[in-house]
Amino acid sequence: MSWRAQVVTLYPEMFPGPLGHSLAGRALEEGRWALQTLQLRDFAEGRHRNVDDTPSGGGPGMVLRVDVLAKAVDAARAASPLAPVLALTPRGPRLTQKRVRELAAGPGVTLLCGRFEGFDERIFAGRGVEPVALGDFILSGGEVAAIALLDACVRLLNGVMGAASSGDEESFESGLLEYPHYTRPAVWEGHGIPEVLTSGDHGKIEAWRKRKAIEDTRLWRPDLLTDES
Amino acid sequence: MSWRAQVVTLYPEMFPGPLGHSLAGRALEEGRWALQTLQLRDFAEGRHRNVDDTPSGGGPGMVLRVDVLAKAVDAARAASPLAPVLALTPRGPRLTQKRVRELAAGPGVTLLCGRFEGFDERIFAGRGVEPVALGDFILSGGEVAAIALLDACVRLLNGVMGAASSGDEESFESGLLEYPHYTRPAVWEGHGIPEVLTSGDHGKIEAWRKRKAIEDTRLWRPDLLTDES
Repeated sequence: MSWRAQVVTLYPEMFPGPLGHSLAGRALEEGRWALQTLQLRDFAEGRHRNVDDTPSGGGPGMVLRVDVLAKAVDAARAASPLAPVLALTPRGPRLTQKRVRELAAGPGVTLLCGRFEGFDERIFAGRGVEPVALGDFILSGGEVAAIALLDACVRLLNGVMGAASSGDEESFESGLLEYPHYTRPAVWEGHGIPEVLTSGDHGKIEAWRKRKAIEDTRLWRPDLLTDES
Repeated sequence: MSWRAQVVTLYPEMFPGPLGHSLAGRALEEGRWALQTLQLRDFAEGRHRNVDDTPSGGGPGMVLRVDVLAKAVDAARAASPLAPVLALTPRGPRLTQKRVRELAAGPGVTLLCGRFEGFDERIFAGRGVEPVALGDFILSGGEVAAIALLDACVRLLNGVMGAASSGDEESFESGLLEYPHYTRPAVWEGHGIPEVLTSGDHGKIEAWRKRKAIEDTRLWRPDLLTDES
């Protein structure tokens, strides 16, 4: 059985989008994962099929209704009972590679894409929905974040990446950024490749890479060196 | 003059993708921003137009060649000299809403999409390229990250969002996550809306929202409360 992604969205036409190409696209064609969109509006009632309403207490924008969201979640759970349900929202913990690995190892995932001012808060406790943020920035909606999350998961599915790139040496897997890479030409505009890399001494190369990984992590992501999470 | 995005990629067919719909898609049609892809392979030489080669010092995967990347950057700079050039890579600082605001306020951005094991490190100093990561997870390539970065920028361009949603009250803008939202129905499966929100007392509502924003930031993103960045 393939890994199953369900996406609850007001913009199903955004999918598969970039996930229909390259690595994820090939894996989709090969049936290594399946993607289904659920149009949130299909779960709304009344002549206007309203999915949103004004925020209680005032303020700008519109909020996605909990009753409509709950019906969509229930439909997704009926189709894929064991898949965790995540809501893409800046109001949540950041996605990590650890969580990506967990999701990829499971049966799939159901994603709720936020729009406007976000979700009625009651959906989280009311349906066991897990909030997750892509990062410290605001998108126009959860769709682009859902695509990123799915891309991160799909590349880890069995048979999607070649055996040569198992991902074990990658950034974050060791709590560090990955070491810097170089390739031919050996000299470019006067800039050479660090000598150690052409020395053929694998012990020295490994030691240099470890040192550079630590240096670059200190430079770009000092938080990773102190983080206890 | 519209905000100009140039994307250097091996997969131009991934664009505009989701950016062709909804908010960003309308803004693209209205000419509020322009999107151009540059096929990296067009800057490679030889019969095979190789863009990558094996990593110096060994290891899995392939590395994008600095000479090919540099030609693509030079072409993008010729077309948009003042736009900063960013490379999407997990080996860099995380994208922040502050950087998104800076980019949106400028003339545009040129984005290099990583693939395989990443970029030859010499491109960064050699062409003044700024590395940027979407978050602590690994994507199959920089394209999906580029789409997210562009979406975050485009929504801040003049006239793209309605005046009602200026984004000032959003997550991260105050160093806190945004407060939780509620909307009708007032009672859903026995769960009500916090009473204060229906009190009509704007001072109390504001105080409650501030308190909840701090509480939820402590819960989901305690790092934001201690971060000095």
